[in-house]
Amino acid sequence: MSLKIPRGFKFSAVEAAIKRPGRKDLALIYSDVDANASAVFTKNLIKAAPVKLSMKRITSQKARVIIVNSGNANACTGKKGIDDVVEIIKLLSKGLGIDERLIYPASTGVIGTPLPMERIKSTLPDLISGIGKATLEDVARAIMTTDTFPKYISTELKVGDEVGTISAVAKGAGMINPSMATMLCFIITDLSIDKSALSKALKEAVDLSFNRITIDGETSTNDMVMIMANSLAGNDTISLKSKSYRDFKKALNYVTEELAKMIVRDGEGATKVIKVIVRGAQNKKDAELAARAVANSLLVKTALYGNDANWGRIMSAIGASGARVIEEKVDIYFNHLQIVKKGMSAGNDSTANELLKSSKELNLIIDLASGKEEFSVLTCDISEDYVRINAEYRT
Amino acid sequence: MSLKIPRGFKFSAVEAAIKRPGRKDLALIYSDVDANASAVFTKNLIKAAPVKLSMKRITSQKARVIIVNSGNANACTGKKGIDDVVEIIKLLSKGLGIDERLIYPASTGVIGTPLPMERIKSTLPDLISGIGKATLEDVARAIMTTDTFPKYISTELKVGDEVGTISAVAKGAGMINPSMATMLCFIITDLSIDKSALSKALKEAVDLSFNRITIDGETSTNDMVMIMANSLAGNDTISLKSKSYRDFKKALNYVTEELAKMIVRDGEGATKVIKVIVRGAQNKKDAELAARAVANSLLVKTALYGNDANWGRIMSAIGASGARVIEEKVDIYFNHLQIVKKGMSAGNDSTANELLKSSKELNLIIDLASGKEEFSVLTCDISEDYVRINAEYRT
Repeated sequence: MSLKIPRGFKFSAVEAAIKRPGRKDLALIYSDVDANASAVFTKNLIKAAPVKLSMKRITSQKARVIIVNSGNANACTGKKGIDDVVEIIKLLSKGLGIDERLIYPASTGVIGTPLPMERIKSTLPDLISGIGKATLEDVARAIMTTDTFPKYISTELKVGDEVGTISAVAKGAGMINPSMATMLCFIITDLSIDKSALSKALKEAVDLSFNRITIDGETSTNDMVMIMANSLAGNDTISLKSKSYRDFKKALNYVTEELAKMIVRDGEGATKVIKVIVRGAQNKKDAELAARAVANSLLVKTALYGNDANWGRIMSAIGASGARVIEEKVDIYFNHLQIVKKGMSAGNDSTANELLKSSKELNLIIDLASGKEEFSVLTCDISEDYVRINAEYRT
Repeated sequence: MSLKIPRGFKFSAVEAAIKRPGRKDLALIYSDVDANASAVFTKNLIKAAPVKLSMKRITSQKARVIIVNSGNANACTGKKGIDDVVEIIKLLSKGLGIDERLIYPASTGVIGTPLPMERIKSTLPDLISGIGKATLEDVARAIMTTDTFPKYISTELKVGDEVGTISAVAKGAGMINPSMATMLCFIITDLSIDKSALSKALKEAVDLSFNRITIDGETSTNDMVMIMANSLAGNDTISLKSKSYRDFKKALNYVTEELAKMIVRDGEGATKVIKVIVRGAQNKKDAELAARAVANSLLVKTALYGNDANWGRIMSAIGASGARVIEEKVDIYFNHLQIVKKGMSAGNDSTANELLKSSKELNLIIDLASGKEEFSVLTCDISEDYVRINAEYRT
């Protein structure tokens, strides 16, 4: 799939050797003109310095530049953490001739270590002069931590006579949490869309994508999804009342859902992507409680890794989820194969084990048979590698 | 430590080859006379057949016999599961000449597979004739699943002029959950204590012990703690108003806390026992939320396993816990070594790493410095072996 870039967006990426040398780890997303902007941030009370700063800035709903680094989260770094990111932005502002209030910082990596300011500052001239020399793929690579592949996507959308592009990069891997905020994701578009429509569309897109994935049930201090819309496609500005708003939402949802899937596929040590679908719930809340409980259950995730259709652990997880569950009504399926019938074995365990062995992606469908509500969460299995990766993360 | 047995209690254990042959997996705890009884059960809505039955029986607060098997949970087995356990109890009742309402079943093992009734029924005569020929240690061994050592303890208590004994066995390993019920634990005593005092003391003891441990955040379908007090010590009956009630509670708490510690020490694949102590919270609820979040965080548990004092993950876990946390106030210690000072590094990471390397038990103290409330949870680290054990559990 070739990656399309919206008009007026340029990129830069340099090696600042933030955690260690050998890769580009500091990147810039740059719009030629002011863009409408919106963002969603982590709900963790402990927030990284760049998150604190970007949260203040976004009230203007205007942006020009995002500067993002991997290798260091700049979280739990106190006043120095804030001072450091303010200093970087001041230098960038001066070098770019752009109001510092239009520059948004983001970071990902180890918590609690101050940024290596000398190394970062010494690379800023290259970062600035490099604008337009890097690709969006380079940005996707620069923000990777334990990710094993870069995550990017683009789609096109016709609004009136104009064709606009929506492109995005994301990073994921560990610390991906249900029901809270997300990971890092930056979305850019040349479509013209007003601030309130942009803001509403982003919140809904995040809710349907990044807020419905889980790898380890952890919410990071640095999660952030941001969108910039710079209007250079020349379309009639999309508002909440436009017919095209629905098309925009659909396109944006496509972008965020695809990236969300990539993040789960790249879950630390994961071998399978599982869509947990709870249906037949009395209400949405019950469906969500049950789906998230299964998607986060260590016992379910290890069984899926072991290609063991151990549905008893699924029953146990929904029973302890807080959702109203009537044991004798529950049906469970792997894709179309029924493994639980009315709360008991459907007698297909060995077929289900074979299905697990041959599946990289799987629908795990739990029918509570008590109502009409549904909720789904994308999750992955957990292997010894998850433990290894996270035991050795800082070494 | 020599294991004392309360007067009038006898034991039996046989091999019924419930999951596989080669070990005793069916056991009996037998009191010569009727005992006052109380029990605490899993809060999972999906409950095993023996749990459903025992929950009904315990309203009488009287018991003579507990029959327990490992290798099969008899959960999610529908009407057949109930019929099976009722049939076993009827046969036992006939064989023993004891009212079936005084016989309590318990099971642990794989969910969703019917009990191998023929094998169990054919061993019942041996189980009955073997009463008095097995030890409490044999019972502790017969209820093990992935446990690596049997868990039992006893203590003595003088009430007036009489010395009574409290003894107990437990099984744990996986599916140990915070804040819910527990695992299997059977406590016996020859002390005379009335029903309401027994019941209150048990609930409090469970709350202070098994409800404050966590291995993988899962609540089993079969959790059950039961106590039998047969009065054969001849002491003045302990009531809620007795001076000796406090001594009884203390002795019971000792028994349950020691068993809880053994369970965490034997957490599947665990290499360390960590007591997470949150203090300085504004209220008890916040202290509990923060302590449980850290104790259940996969990222914290993998870092502890990797001997990495990655305190950023601890900060992140408390920040996302729902507790009120002011980043700039938080202090964190490993035993007496401060690793976080006012939300930032205390500069002791490498010393802390060394401390982790040399520690099998560790206090992880988190001071929120916002109030006076405290809560602690016992947890363990998580290793590749946890994943391996649980991926291969049914194979």
